[in-house]
Amino acid sequence: MSNIPFALIRAALEEDGAFADITTLSTVPLEQQAHGSIITRHAGVIAGLTIVAATFHELDPRVAVTLLVEDGATVQPGQLIAILRGPARAVLSAERVALNFLGRLSGIATLTAQCVQAVEGTRARVLDTRKTTPGLRALEKEAVRLGGGHNHRSGLNDGILIKDNHIKAAGGIAQSIRAARARAPHLLKIEVECETLSEVREALQAGADVILLDNMDIDTMRSAVELTRRISPNILIEASGSIGANPTRLQAVASTGVDFISLGALTHSAPNFDISLEFA
Amino acid sequence: MSNIPFALIRAALEEDGAFADITTLSTVPLEQQAHGSIITRHAGVIAGLTIVAATFHELDPRVAVTLLVEDGATVQPGQLIAILRGPARAVLSAERVALNFLGRLSGIATLTAQCVQAVEGTRARVLDTRKTTPGLRALEKEAVRLGGGHNHRSGLNDGILIKDNHIKAAGGIAQSIRAARARAPHLLKIEVECETLSEVREALQAGADVILLDNMDIDTMRSAVELTRRISPNILIEASGSIGANPTRLQAVASTGVDFISLGALTHSAPNFDISLEFA
Amino acid sequence: MSNIPFALIRAALEEDGAFADITTLSTVPLEQQAHGSIITRHAGVIAGLTIVAATFHELDPRVAVTLLVEDGATVQPGQLIAILRGPARAVLSAERVALNFLGRLSGIATLTAQCVQAVEGTRARVLDTRKTTPGLRALEKEAVRLGGGHNHRSGLNDGILIKDNHIKAAGGIAQSIRAARARAPHLLKIEVECETLSEVREALQAGADVILLDNMDIDTMRSAVELTRRISPNILIEASGSIGANPTRLQAVASTGVDFISLGALTHSAPNFDISLEFA
Amino acid sequence: MSNIPFALIRAALEEDGAFADITTLSTVPLEQQAHGSIITRHAGVIAGLTIVAATFHELDPRVAVTLLVEDGATVQPGQLIAILRGPARAVLSAERVALNFLGRLSGIATLTAQCVQAVEGTRARVLDTRKTTPGLRALEKEAVRLGGGHNHRSGLNDGILIKDNHIKAAGGIAQSIRAARARAPHLLKIEVECETLSEVREALQAGADVILLDNMDIDTMRSAVELTRRISPNILIEASGSIGANPTRLQAVASTGVDFISLGALTHSAPNFDISLEFA
Amino acid sequence: MSNIPFALIRAALEEDGAFADITTLSTVPLEQQAHGSIITRHAGVIAGLTIVAATFHELDPRVAVTLLVEDGATVQPGQLIAILRGPARAVLSAERVALNFLGRLSGIATLTAQCVQAVEGTRARVLDTRKTTPGLRALEKEAVRLGGGHNHRSGLNDGILIKDNHIKAAGGIAQSIRAARARAPHLLKIEVECETLSEVREALQAGADVILLDNMDIDTMRSAVELTRRISPNILIEASGSIGANPTRLQAVASTGVDFISLGALTHSAPNFDISLEFA
Amino acid sequence: MSNIPFALIRAALEEDGAFADITTLSTVPLEQQAHGSIITRHAGVIAGLTIVAATFHELDPRVAVTLLVEDGATVQPGQLIAILRGPARAVLSAERVALNFLGRLSGIATLTAQCVQAVEGTRARVLDTRKTTPGLRALEKEAVRLGGGHNHRSGLNDGILIKDNHIKAAGGIAQSIRAARARAPHLLKIEVECETLSEVREALQAGADVILLDNMDIDTMRSAVELTRRISPNILIEASGSIGANPTRLQAVASTGVDFISLGALTHSAPNFDISLEFA
Repeated sequence: MSNIPFALIRAALEEDGAFADITTLSTVPLEQQAHGSIITRHAGVIAGLTIVAATFHELDPRVAVTLLVEDGATVQPGQLIAILRGPARAVLSAERVALNFLGRLSGIATLTAQCVQAVEGTRARVLDTRKTTPGLRALEKEAVRLGGGHNHRSGLNDGILIKDNHIKAAGGIAQSIRAARARAPHLLKIEVECETLSEVREALQAGADVILLDNMDIDTMRSAVELTRRISPNILIEASGSIGANPTRLQAVASTGVDFISLGALTHSAPNFDISLEFA
Repeated sequence: MSNIPFALIRAALEEDGAFADITTLSTVPLEQQAHGSIITRHAGVIAGLTIVAATFHELDPRVAVTLLVEDGATVQPGQLIAILRGPARAVLSAERVALNFLGRLSGIATLTAQCVQAVEGTRARVLDTRKTTPGLRALEKEAVRLGGGHNHRSGLNDGILIKDNHIKAAGGIAQSIRAARARAPHLLKIEVECETLSEVREALQAGADVILLDNMDIDTMRSAVELTRRISPNILIEASGSIGANPTRLQAVASTGVDFISLGALTHSAPNFDISLEFA
Repeated sequence: MSNIPFALIRAALEEDGAFADITTLSTVPLEQQAHGSIITRHAGVIAGLTIVAATFHELDPRVAVTLLVEDGATVQPGQLIAILRGPARAVLSAERVALNFLGRLSGIATLTAQCVQAVEGTRARVLDTRKTTPGLRALEKEAVRLGGGHNHRSGLNDGILIKDNHIKAAGGIAQSIRAARARAPHLLKIEVECETLSEVREALQAGADVILLDNMDIDTMRSAVELTRRISPNILIEASGSIGANPTRLQAVASTGVDFISLGALTHSAPNFDISLEFA
Repeated sequence: MSNIPFALIRAALEEDGAFADITTLSTVPLEQQAHGSIITRHAGVIAGLTIVAATFHELDPRVAVTLLVEDGATVQPGQLIAILRGPARAVLSAERVALNFLGRLSGIATLTAQCVQAVEGTRARVLDTRKTTPGLRALEKEAVRLGGGHNHRSGLNDGILIKDNHIKAAGGIAQSIRAARARAPHLLKIEVECETLSEVREALQAGADVILLDNMDIDTMRSAVELTRRISPNILIEASGSIGANPTRLQAVASTGVDFISLGALTHSAPNFDISLEFA
Repeated sequence: MSNIPFALIRAALEEDGAFADITTLSTVPLEQQAHGSIITRHAGVIAGLTIVAATFHELDPRVAVTLLVEDGATVQPGQLIAILRGPARAVLSAERVALNFLGRLSGIATLTAQCVQAVEGTRARVLDTRKTTPGLRALEKEAVRLGGGHNHRSGLNDGILIKDNHIKAAGGIAQSIRAARARAPHLLKIEVECETLSEVREALQAGADVILLDNMDIDTMRSAVELTRRISPNILIEASGSIGANPTRLQAVASTGVDFISLGALTHSAPNFDISLEFA
Repeated sequence: MSNIPFALIRAALEEDGAFADITTLSTVPLEQQAHGSIITRHAGVIAGLTIVAATFHELDPRVAVTLLVEDGATVQPGQLIAILRGPARAVLSAERVALNFLGRLSGIATLTAQCVQAVEGTRARVLDTRKTTPGLRALEKEAVRLGGGHNHRSGLNDGILIKDNHIKAAGGIAQSIRAARARAPHLLKIEVECETLSEVREALQAGADVILLDNMDIDTMRSAVELTRRISPNILIEASGSIGANPTRLQAVASTGVDFISLGALTHSAPNFDISLEFA
């Protein structure tokens, strides 16, 4: 039940002018065949190979793409991860779009894997956020999973996260939780953002299902976790707020005992993963 | 003659579930008004403010967005750059999409400005590449311009850049240039990628309009520039190939006398520019 | 923050050939003005008036639509609910599409209101299902809310409901709940469909957040509710399965103490609500 | 020359979140195969089986759908009408959308067949109207044909039906017919709505090709038919106006000798036809 | 109830790269205002002015377009027909697309007017065909009307025209007419293509509503008209088949007494109408 | 790497109502097979055969299309160029759209070939312009190439052509060239439109890469060419401006020594190429 985003791939090829690649059309004969190798230049986790295959197929279904690893594989620098055979024109014209997808998604998966490794041995799961690239959310969230992370809600329509401004508007934490329960589908839990211990206490008393500790220092965070565990042992706790993809900082946050650490950097600041396409 | 990408903005809002923001709909009264401030957290160059305004308007035309700086402005940390007034629901529901655009584009503009500054005093212009985010090329290329950079071709259909594989396919540099001239629109120049001095010489003799020095060390690059200037003083020279957004490296490359330095990192690895939306 | 589905309205007008209404174009002069009254023929709850206004505007923005009641209003037969003024051609050409939306959505709101009234005095909320018209889900779910009902999940992507076949595939109730917890976003509750008391018991022990009693007779349902309340007082209980929009049956189900009754009939079998457009 | 509405099916699957069915993705193994049976729960006429097959294929082309009856077949309760084999995930995730199409379209075909049967032995054909579900007109009109009914015009652009308001606007029946003849394509007949015998007489004299008797009682209708047959034996006569899908009423109308009876209820109020998908 | 094809206009502007007009963006200052005049170079009938206005507005709503004549007006060479005022960039960038629409549509209207004039004094109406430009049918058919012509059916779905191959497939003229009556909506007339007098006779006897005389010489055509008028005075007669937009030929055909002459050339071979945009 | 415009073909079929061809559906049995021959009626150059094949396949993939010549072939009147075998309904319903594409594109290729032949023996290449049919530019430009012509820029975004109004806005020829160089991608040449010899001289001095001689008489044009060759031997020269597809005029223009002659008539006024589909 794969769900290849064909429309997105098509649009990316058109955006790149790949169907009218003047250089290739004028210099490469129609019948020439190519044998290409996709090779990593970094170590990390690969994501986006199914998109790569679909991209070449979209331009020309005769390009055969053989994947030597699966999405989610850990790779070494210089590793051959896929082989292309088919019309040289199509391989050349689709190359850039394919690598643009692959480099971005593998960059996200790799950064995620580094963060997951940093908190190994703790209960903390690494979560993404809604700070994704417009148009690429589903792909980027899948890359996070491939890197070993977990997904937060996919959008404003499938999760309830009450923040400061919602609380002000509703007239308090208890009121906002009550309002959310009254309207929201019954399958959704209610998460409440808290910046102080007293807000945590109030949220717990008001029946929050999940507590979000936002922008707390490590000591306060630890106290908040202890408080929560004492009052409501089954309540889930998430930490967020400019934590960054820094191992030391991640370990410190994880050591407080939170269930989740959410990181915007996974998707908004992952450096490109360098991958090249070489011809035999 | 602005060309706001309304369809992209609309799709981004739908991708985020912004039209069915359960939390906001259940906790914020319909008639509540908001007063929001968009405030930078970093120093850099802003890009994407017109997209921000269009994003809020797309969700609800009654949100008034007052821009205090223009796209391309240099800003300091903590600077107030825009004010929002209007229905609180719309402001809350569109916030994330608006900031996702703004953070990414300002990140690109800021990184570009740093690179441009690094080569100040030389003849070198900083260029982007086709290593952009699928779906966002036009916006990202505009961000590069706002940061003081210049754009390379926008796609495969509006520029001729003959690379190694084209040369092989055509049977040599001279043949590939001849083939391109025979078919391509007469308004396009022909650029040829060269990795060695002898390739540069061959390309010049064959009538290339622009020489691309790819992956050369600084000394070879300098020799290539000298060779080119001696043979064909009016030929343009571009340097590329894993140069990276590193000031020292950029200065070294620029010191060789090239006309252009193209950098994939401008668009594929610019870190997010941190900007927040705060309510009064 | 209304989210009028303009693309759907446009498509409906095109589907009806409303932009090339031969009869009207040939018999009604371009400049002729109309004064139309939208009048109910039944008693019930109105839904879809904002769609009606948008439909006329889409055909011709000069049609002024004055709504005399709001969506969700209870109306009597023969009640004037909206007035139209504007170019006669546009009013005539858009009439059918506007009334098609209004009749269907008001039919759903009215049937929902009847079901809600049937369970008045109990704790049971009336829920819709995913048995909606392809393309109209958001509108139909809004009509259910306007009729006093509540929405179940909006799709397979924003709620977890483990049914018989999922349980078989996962190897048991406990395994399926565990699998869901491991992958699903942490803001989603887990609902499990049960057809017998022993299944209810097993689901509760395995940590289900919500129990769905499917196709049970009233006595078994009552026992299931008692069992659940005794073991896990905070667990929510939903009844479903060919209950139908029958008041007596609804009261019986509600009397068992369930929290929710979900009814496919609300959206898949609501009779059209008869409304006419008359000209002065 | 089938014309499967792939875009509509795709949109329906996306509307249902079927490509990200969290429950199924987390509980059903990737490689698990399913064997499903589509079984009727009512007696009636089936419509929509080709849509069902296309729906499963759209989600995963590996699902094999074997149809045991064709669209238009009369079925009994409990009858096995189609068999599915293929990846369990795809079968589970597409099930609801497939059944939503099938239940609605079979409901329309079944109601149509009942109405057709009610007028058997008369010359009257049962016609649909433009009171269809926005987005589904072509499918619903096909379901009417499968149930033995006939289609009225498909939209405002491919038929001329002059109603009261057109007559007023044109300045009379004769003027409106003349205006329509002057502009409309010559392949279209002209139908005129009449509410009284004198209007019928005027329409006949003015050269109407088809007479629509709207909201007449049975006696007036009979007189109108006699009048028409006497003056213009070749003119077609249609009866409409809140006739409803009631057998006794239909027989009475048909007994007047009209050529057509048009019924909005066929498409706007047909109850869902109950069909289930069971797994072996 | 205008129905401006905004999507088509938008697509045409994007096809022309009008939103990224490099020449204009680099040479014309942002704030510069233009005053442009649209001036004819030929005599003829204008069609497409509303499209012209919409094209400039689509690029920039600040361009004010003042139309000095209406679509359908007869113009002389050198006549000023519209004035533009607004941002110079937008005027320059949208010019070509606007004139492409205007030149083509006015070319069609002008050729149609010449053909209509050629048959003046006869009963013959000039009709278009389905030989239109893919994507522009509605606009081209409107241009035909503006030139004084009439429209044949707009597509295969809103008219019945039985040709040679249909007759063969159905087993004869009578069978094909019977089959069409049994299935087609009752508001459609049935036209039958005939190439000989005996076919005309057969079609009349079988109850055709309209006779199409295809590729007949003038004498045969005259006989066919006489035959038809004698047998069925109310039957309509159309002539078609490589008649061409030649006045003498058109007069000869019209003199036979046919009701309609259909001409593919109106839409597939009308020469462009030369119109220029000049700046003050 | 063909880039068949499936969306355009689909839209054209829907525009023609080809999926609901009432005549064919009612008169031709579902299972009937057809054997069709596509036969030219004129001499010329064929373009659009791949579109023809795709059009029939889009309606029904079972139609087998055998092409007997390739696009670009020169054909004689009465030549069989393609054979169709498959379901008769699909062949009949798609015929018109397929021939509409084929007739238009072959008309353009044929006119282009005539113009190319007229300038044979000179250095002049025949160029198209941006005066193409909205929506069909890529196809029409390909038809020009198939006829032996060359393409000018494909849109405003991939070439720089400075016209009179740009020069005025920029403050002179030198200023406008400087402004274009400062902003435009470095791979684009700069062409400047000149109407007098002094403008040519100024453009050459300012560094134009290409000179466009607009609306000059033959003598002035000859002087302009001589002037240009004397000052800047490598500068390319294009002639344009109401030259028309007239052989004598084309020869005269070509004899002046220009490199290119651009002709709007190739795409905006090419008469339809007559081609028919006949059944065995």
